[in-house]
Amino acid sequence: MTLDITRLDANQADFEQRLDALLAWESVSDHGVQTAVHEIVESVRQRGDAAVLEHTNRFDHMAITDLADLVVPDSRLQDALDRIPADQRVALQVAAERVRAYHEHQKQDSWSYTEADGTLLGQKVTPLDRVGLYVPGGKASYPSSVLMNAIPAKVAGVKEIVMVVPTPGGEVNEMVFAAAKIAGVDKVITIGGAQAVAALAYGTETVPRVDKIVGPGNIYVATAKRMVFGQVGIDMIAGPSEILVVCDGQTNPDWIAMDLFSQAEHDEDAQSILVSPDADFIERVAQSLQELLPTLERESIARVSLKNRGALIKVQDLDQAVELINRIAPEHLELSVEDPQTMAQRVRHAGAIFMGRYTAEALGDYCAGPNHVLPTSGTARYSSPLGVYDFQKRSSLIMCTPEKASELGKVASVLSRGESLTAHARSAEYRIKD
Amino acid sequence: MTLDITRLDANQADFEQRLDALLAWESVSDHGVQTAVHEIVESVRQRGDAAVLEHTNRFDHMAITDLADLVVPDSRLQDALDRIPADQRVALQVAAERVRAYHEHQKQDSWSYTEADGTLLGQKVTPLDRVGLYVPGGKASYPSSVLMNAIPAKVAGVKEIVMVVPTPGGEVNEMVFAAAKIAGVDKVITIGGAQAVAALAYGTETVPRVDKIVGPGNIYVATAKRMVFGQVGIDMIAGPSEILVVCDGQTNPDWIAMDLFSQAEHDEDAQSILVSPDADFIERVAQSLQELLPTLERESIARVSLKNRGALIKVQDLDQAVELINRIAPEHLELSVEDPQTMAQRVRHAGAIFMGRYTAEALGDYCAGPNHVLPTSGTARYSSPLGVYDFQKRSSLIMCTPEKASELGKVASVLSRGESLTAHARSAEYRIKD
Repeated sequence: MTLDITRLDANQADFEQRLDALLAWESVSDHGVQTAVHEIVESVRQRGDAAVLEHTNRFDHMAITDLADLVVPDSRLQDALDRIPADQRVALQVAAERVRAYHEHQKQDSWSYTEADGTLLGQKVTPLDRVGLYVPGGKASYPSSVLMNAIPAKVAGVKEIVMVVPTPGGEVNEMVFAAAKIAGVDKVITIGGAQAVAALAYGTETVPRVDKIVGPGNIYVATAKRMVFGQVGIDMIAGPSEILVVCDGQTNPDWIAMDLFSQAEHDEDAQSILVSPDADFIERVAQSLQELLPTLERESIARVSLKNRGALIKVQDLDQAVELINRIAPEHLELSVEDPQTMAQRVRHAGAIFMGRYTAEALGDYCAGPNHVLPTSGTARYSSPLGVYDFQKRSSLIMCTPEKASELGKVASVLSRGESLTAHARSAEYRIKD
Repeated sequence: MTLDITRLDANQADFEQRLDALLAWESVSDHGVQTAVHEIVESVRQRGDAAVLEHTNRFDHMAITDLADLVVPDSRLQDALDRIPADQRVALQVAAERVRAYHEHQKQDSWSYTEADGTLLGQKVTPLDRVGLYVPGGKASYPSSVLMNAIPAKVAGVKEIVMVVPTPGGEVNEMVFAAAKIAGVDKVITIGGAQAVAALAYGTETVPRVDKIVGPGNIYVATAKRMVFGQVGIDMIAGPSEILVVCDGQTNPDWIAMDLFSQAEHDEDAQSILVSPDADFIERVAQSLQELLPTLERESIARVSLKNRGALIKVQDLDQAVELINRIAPEHLELSVEDPQTMAQRVRHAGAIFMGRYTAEALGDYCAGPNHVLPTSGTARYSSPLGVYDFQKRSSLIMCTPEKASELGKVASVLSRGESLTAHARSAEYRIKD
């Protein structure tokens, strides 16, 4: 079968429109999903454990009579860690250690300063009390995701992480349990779906109410998270994964092809784009894609993804590549070029920047240290990788001396009267010295 | 008329339920609002300026034929600044300067570290390119809100701030224009409502597309912001304003009463709560509230607000007050006590902490320096005051040496094969040295 992938030239007349069409993505949960999720969320809110139990038995094909039976004892997590193959255990531990070391750099501290008269201003930084971590069950159950979500929370100082992971038909992913043990997850409950999100948001007899819910999930989980937002915090709602590889033509085309496949194999909506000023190189990569595609375990997914959303884009030069990067704001950006650091300085929008021919994006997915939860679909224009800062929050600190209260009281009085908020004015004016 | 306000004792049997009922708040935009906003947003997305023009003429009672006429020239902003009374101009300038100085402390820098072998890891911090600032028109048009939203964006390094403010019937708030000039807003367009939010999110011929929209608005504006979230970033959706005042009984009860009024006068849903271990003092404050209420310009609003959502709560001691603070996670917390700093150390959740008898909350609303956009309705459990960090975002940086790529490639290979993502594994394995 011939490889089917879009080829574009950044200087062709209709490039802008074609690029827009290529990038277009809108996550829509249809009315049916909305209604179903709304009913599940309300039932859990009103009936707690009983509702979670019903939905779990129904959707996960279980036959449980007490939700407390789905709370996984810590010894069971330790069993999983002991039971998995040694190479996996060591790999998880190495990855966890590197992720932890990197995220330690993100920790923010309280700060304050004192003005000449003694007035104190600042911000107190505190961790969230309790966080919920959603982990999908079945095929999309990724231990790396447990590490990437739980470790930043622990580094932030979150006291309690409650992880939910469905076990459809009772099937447990041992590596996920092992990763939970390594990451220091405090409580694991084997429930999932919208019912698990609702339980974390509102609390039930068995599931403690959390302050924020993070982690990936299917459309029901994503819809439920949007619905409970405000009651609790949520992380971003992720779109399909994407990679933009910029190559000067000097990297092994097989390497570049496999880097593109490593996104394309995620799912049929994933997006893999190669940008290069070297037309011959683009053709060599196309040739590699063609040859390697049939050797992939997930060939059929990658084939559809490349056909529907992939692209090979010829640019004039690397300057034009930088413009394109900032236009696309990719989730993953691979700079497979001679001087990636100089190029990275000109990148304004990207989730993660992988510099140099050796820094495969896959290293970042697992063990380089940075988080693999990244802004998708161009949202790197305004948002950031998941980090310790997502599990910390700030309180402003203000302590005025009587002198400063008097001085500022006059300013506040003028401004609040200008806004017709006269109780504000009078509250400030009480503190003005005669 | 007698003062009507709830009195509670933290040790009464049904306290928890009564407190829950008092705090309960859910912002709901009904189906009618949703549908109306959806139609407006879609029309603007499809027809750009023409749709914004129609909605503006209709909702703001205007008769404009070209949207470009609603772009306010910079000279007009300067006129406003020249025209307002000198005391207001100076007050705005003093406030802006203090807000700027405070927010400079929030600016975050890029960071990186190099491992022993030369592998580089870090995060690049960049400002958003362009931000939209919504400012309500009419009675709720507050110049202080312009300063509080625009200045952190400018400190972050945002190149372009596009402010929208409706002028129903052509009525302009000169102080708002003057504040825009002082804060360095780059473009002002006199449009509002859901149509202005949609225009900022998708861009039209006249309105540039932004990366994030901040600023308060009515239910139509809030609904539109929720709807375009994902297309652009948004700030939090604020609930009604609240204050929790903790007093040891040694502050002038009139001061405390006026501090409570300064929230209560905002709107009928605003919430003012006093917590004190001193029962006599609570009665003295109740007496002050009773006496001062008829002297307020916004008496009727404050009366309804205190009746529906206000409370005077007796606690055992200040330790119990701290428990209550962390349970409520108030937007504004006033610690009108002898040693507020020691007490503040035990506060885990609050938007802003005003320490000492002289630090009236109203000072923070206008000119102390910290932001007045704060998490409401208990969301201080997981979110922060608006700040420079809301206008900066991060990109992960990873550059592996060939040696590190080889070493990490082995780890990534094991983990990705454990997740059945074999193209990931092969991409990493290409970089393993023999």
